[in-house]
Amino acid sequence: DESQDTKHDVSPDLENAIETVNAEANTPEVIEPHKELNDDPVPLEIERDGTDVYINMTAQITDIEIEKGYNYKAWTFNGEAPGPLVVVNEGDTIHFTLENKDPAIPHSMDFHAVHTAPDKGFANVEPNEEGTFSYQATKPGVFMYHCGTAPVLSHIANGMHGVIIVQPKDGYPTDHEVEKEYAIIQNEWYKYNDLDDMTNGVPSQVVFSTKALHEGQSNTNGTVTAVKDEPLLAKVGDKVRIYVNNVGPNEVSSFHVVGTVFDDVYIDGNPANHMEGLQTVMLPASGGAVVEFTVKEEGVYPFVTHQFNHAQKGAVGFIKVTAD
Amino acid sequence: DESQDTKHDVSPDLENAIETVNAEANTPEVIEPHKELNDDPVPLEIERDGTDVYINMTAQITDIEIEKGYNYKAWTFNGEAPGPLVVVNEGDTIHFTLENKDPAIPHSMDFHAVHTAPDKGFANVEPNEEGTFSYQATKPGVFMYHCGTAPVLSHIANGMHGVIIVQPKDGYPTDHEVEKEYAIIQNEWYKYNDLDDMTNGVPSQVVFSTKALHEGQSNTNGTVTAVKDEPLLAKVGDKVRIYVNNVGPNEVSSFHVVGTVFDDVYIDGNPANHMEGLQTVMLPASGGAVVEFTVKEEGVYPFVTHQFNHAQKGAVGFIKVTAD
Amino acid sequence: DESQDTKHDVSPDLENAIETVNAEANTPEVIEPHKELNDDPVPLEIERDGTDVYINMTAQITDIEIEKGYNYKAWTFNGEAPGPLVVVNEGDTIHFTLENKDPAIPHSMDFHAVHTAPDKGFANVEPNEEGTFSYQATKPGVFMYHCGTAPVLSHIANGMHGVIIVQPKDGYPTDHEVEKEYAIIQNEWYKYNDLDDMTNGVPSQVVFSTKALHEGQSNTNGTVTAVKDEPLLAKVGDKVRIYVNNVGPNEVSSFHVVGTVFDDVYIDGNPANHMEGLQTVMLPASGGAVVEFTVKEEGVYPFVTHQFNHAQKGAVGFIKVTAD
Ligand SMILES: [Cu+2]
Ligand SMILES: [Cu+2]
Ligand SMILES: [Cu+2]
Ligand SMILES: [Cu+2]
Ligand SMILES: [Cu+2]
Ligand SMILES: [Cu+2]
Ligand code: NA
Ligand code: NA
Ligand code: NA
Ligand code: NA
Ligand code: NA
Ligand code: NA
Ligand SMILES: [Zn+2]
Ligand SMILES: [Zn+2]
Ligand SMILES: [Zn+2]
Ligand SMILES: [Zn+2]
Ligand SMILES: [Zn+2]
Ligand SMILES: [Zn+2]
Ligand SMILES: [Zn+2]
Ligand SMILES: [Zn+2]
Ligand SMILES: [Zn+2]
Repeated sequence: DESQDTKHDVSPDLENAIETVNAEANTPEVIEPHKELNDDPVPLEIERDGTDVYINMTAQITDIEIEKGYNYKAWTFNGEAPGPLVVVNEGDTIHFTLENKDPAIPHSMDFHAVHTAPDKGFANVEPNEEGTFSYQATKPGVFMYHCGTAPVLSHIANGMHGVIIVQPKDGYPTDHEVEKEYAIIQNEWYKYNDLDDMTNGVPSQVVFSTKALHEGQSNTNGTVTAVKDEPLLAKVGDKVRIYVNNVGPNEVSSFHVVGTVFDDVYIDGNPANHMEGLQTVMLPASGGAVVEFTVKEEGVYPFVTHQFNHAQKGAVGFIKVTAD
Repeated sequence: DESQDTKHDVSPDLENAIETVNAEANTPEVIEPHKELNDDPVPLEIERDGTDVYINMTAQITDIEIEKGYNYKAWTFNGEAPGPLVVVNEGDTIHFTLENKDPAIPHSMDFHAVHTAPDKGFANVEPNEEGTFSYQATKPGVFMYHCGTAPVLSHIANGMHGVIIVQPKDGYPTDHEVEKEYAIIQNEWYKYNDLDDMTNGVPSQVVFSTKALHEGQSNTNGTVTAVKDEPLLAKVGDKVRIYVNNVGPNEVSSFHVVGTVFDDVYIDGNPANHMEGLQTVMLPASGGAVVEFTVKEEGVYPFVTHQFNHAQKGAVGFIKVTAD
Repeated sequence: DESQDTKHDVSPDLENAIETVNAEANTPEVIEPHKELNDDPVPLEIERDGTDVYINMTAQITDIEIEKGYNYKAWTFNGEAPGPLVVVNEGDTIHFTLENKDPAIPHSMDFHAVHTAPDKGFANVEPNEEGTFSYQATKPGVFMYHCGTAPVLSHIANGMHGVIIVQPKDGYPTDHEVEKEYAIIQNEWYKYNDLDDMTNGVPSQVVFSTKALHEGQSNTNGTVTAVKDEPLLAKVGDKVRIYVNNVGPNEVSSFHVVGTVFDDVYIDGNPANHMEGLQTVMLPASGGAVVEFTVKEEGVYPFVTHQFNHAQKGAVGFIKVTAD
């Protein structure tokens, strides 16, 4: 992206001029109805009645501190970006309600985990309204969800993405070997609400977040330090499982954990798609995986996308391994 | 690409100057011998005699309307871009003739489906000449073909690409489950015949086309609206199969159908490479797949590359599902 | 990248100004302590005692001629970029010593093949010091290695990368079919030691190198002509195996051999990850594969990344096939 690459390409005068304009460009251009908005995050509501699962979520405008001192007035689900982790079981019927608290823009929900006609099941919910939709999650996996309102790129890149895990009815063949498990999401950030930069530029930040799968685990937003400040935890000798999805919006991911090799990988989290001994797993945009690996010594194990320009922009997290 | 990203980066004066130059830049720089050329598309000729298949194709200059009102004077096979779909059987011997109707530039044919020494089997055919080549298609799959004349990037990016399906001798394990099948191709367009933009820029358009596999199906070029204006058709409950290839030239694809999950995927279309339950399939540049999925409700199901900057540039198509 | 794409975007005056600055920009900005340095390559030292393998390598500053007349004062392992090929056996314990001959910058070694706590096993070795580390290579495959010193992107992009093959204890199912085997590495080069270009730009060159697996084979650096000037060799009818890794640092690869189809592919080189009949294999950044294919006729078979903007920047090599 040119604004970040002027150092050697232009004369000093032009460089100064461009830096001035860049400073303006980096000022968030928040749309008028969002200017005073910063809704507090609200917890995900999820209730089960047999195989019927009732999920309530919000679309809302909430500041996310992507880097120290830089707040992005994100378009979010429930005030998080990525949105809250949803976990259901293979075969569940989801009854989903979206409450759109955005006063200005319609939003919607596209769960990659379900079968539905998108023009109905993923339909827009107008500002200050709510909509309810039902569909079944018939396949196990680590699925992306996202707002599907046009222009979709703006809605995803402004923060409306997340992960729904559909747990396999018969589990994974390696379930009994796993001592710790975590959920990790990769996403990119662009210049604020700048569809042109989202379409033609390179990411400003590429980040990881973690979402609590079990009691005591953290929920973080996608920021350049989130999974460094609060590392994932494991004990020497543990087999660790990570449910990972790369929600994009634009880039693919080369997911890698330093200091180990994946014992087992399930592409998109489906137990049928088993691979072994991968150093790095290729994730398409919106692609997921379950990866499992053993940490044999005490210390700090970083994970990255091995597309290192993206690691350089933030996409690094830590796993802290302590003695048993 | 900078010309599409000037809004916030430069002063208004410089912006105006750049816009003026861009307008010129976007004027096709058609080479002199192509200036008055716009050859009508000619149908693919394909004849079979046992396992010998005789295929005649042309290299020709033909206008392709990529976006409403924007004609790209494409370098094509048979006046289509992508070129016509070729379907043969595993084990066939192909006898291929290329008639080069381009008065100025040599062209050639590289079928990814065949075994041959490229300097002989994929050799250049000079302007206004024709060349015949023979080779065998020994592996089943959804293969790219393209002109292999240097600079190859110019020939592919100017339109000389397409798909050859080699049908597996023993079929796919899921053949009996499939009710509808279609062929889809993803390709990118760049500034007209601008090797520098093709090499260092980002795509101007990313598009889908469909090619008729069966009687009554459409043949379209790769344009931003081709598979929206004429959606693929299916009935509620159908299992739909798509043969897909991402011919690039530069970008990988994260192929996804909204509102469903792939039941079965065969990477590169080889029955041995079976995956299940994918939300999105990763296609390298020139990579293919057979993907199968069930559409359970009436409505419109978009498909995209989930690299949403590319969807934003056109890479969206529709599947229209009606009641049985 | 803008500096390579000014032709149509700006006025002639501005273009001249930019070209002047670009000329300066392309002058290597070698850091002061490296200015007079150009250490001769030193051979890899590797000795075996049972399953204990003792490996000595250097970190050193050495000129690499990437293109004719363009020397890149690379940060290297052993004076090669990529560094020397390391081959060990599944289950080996590696005792690794890094001698850091760089007078100014710490370096380190991250083998993707091993299990270790990175903050200890991949720790920095200070200038003019050496460090020794031990760890086990428990998984077979075609693994990347690289310097892991911060900023990692600078160290990899300046040349500190290579491949370690861990040979599977029980071999590959197709071992008996293979007549020739070679090792190939893909890497990118950016503007000299320009972390901004490495982070936000596009590659200046994308290249292949080959490293000797067997006596009589070549060792080359990653240059735009390395595997054209000295092609890989095979005989008509050979099944050829290539161990390939895409060390990046930033880009994924769509590895393809023209004129053939891969009979067998082992993703990341693990015998468990078998695919068949691929035209192109998707390699994430730092991803590897074993690919096997048959060459049926005399002639020259190019291989490429089918992301053709990268092939255009150099990523083409040749296999020369002669009569038996
Ligand atoms: Cu939205
Ligand atoms: Cu989606
Ligand atoms: Cu051509
Ligand atoms: Cu090709
Ligand atoms: Cu280093
Ligand atoms: Cu690494
Ligand atoms: Na990128
Ligand atoms: Na590792
Ligand atoms: Na791109
Ligand atoms: Na879907
Ligand atoms: Na690129
Ligand atoms: Na080929
Ligand atoms: Zn728990
Ligand atoms: Zn690593
Ligand atoms: Zn296992
Ligand atoms: Zn038919
Ligand atoms: Zn979707
Ligand atoms: Zn099935
Ligand atoms: Zn040997
Ligand atoms: Zn080819
Ligand atoms: Zn085989």
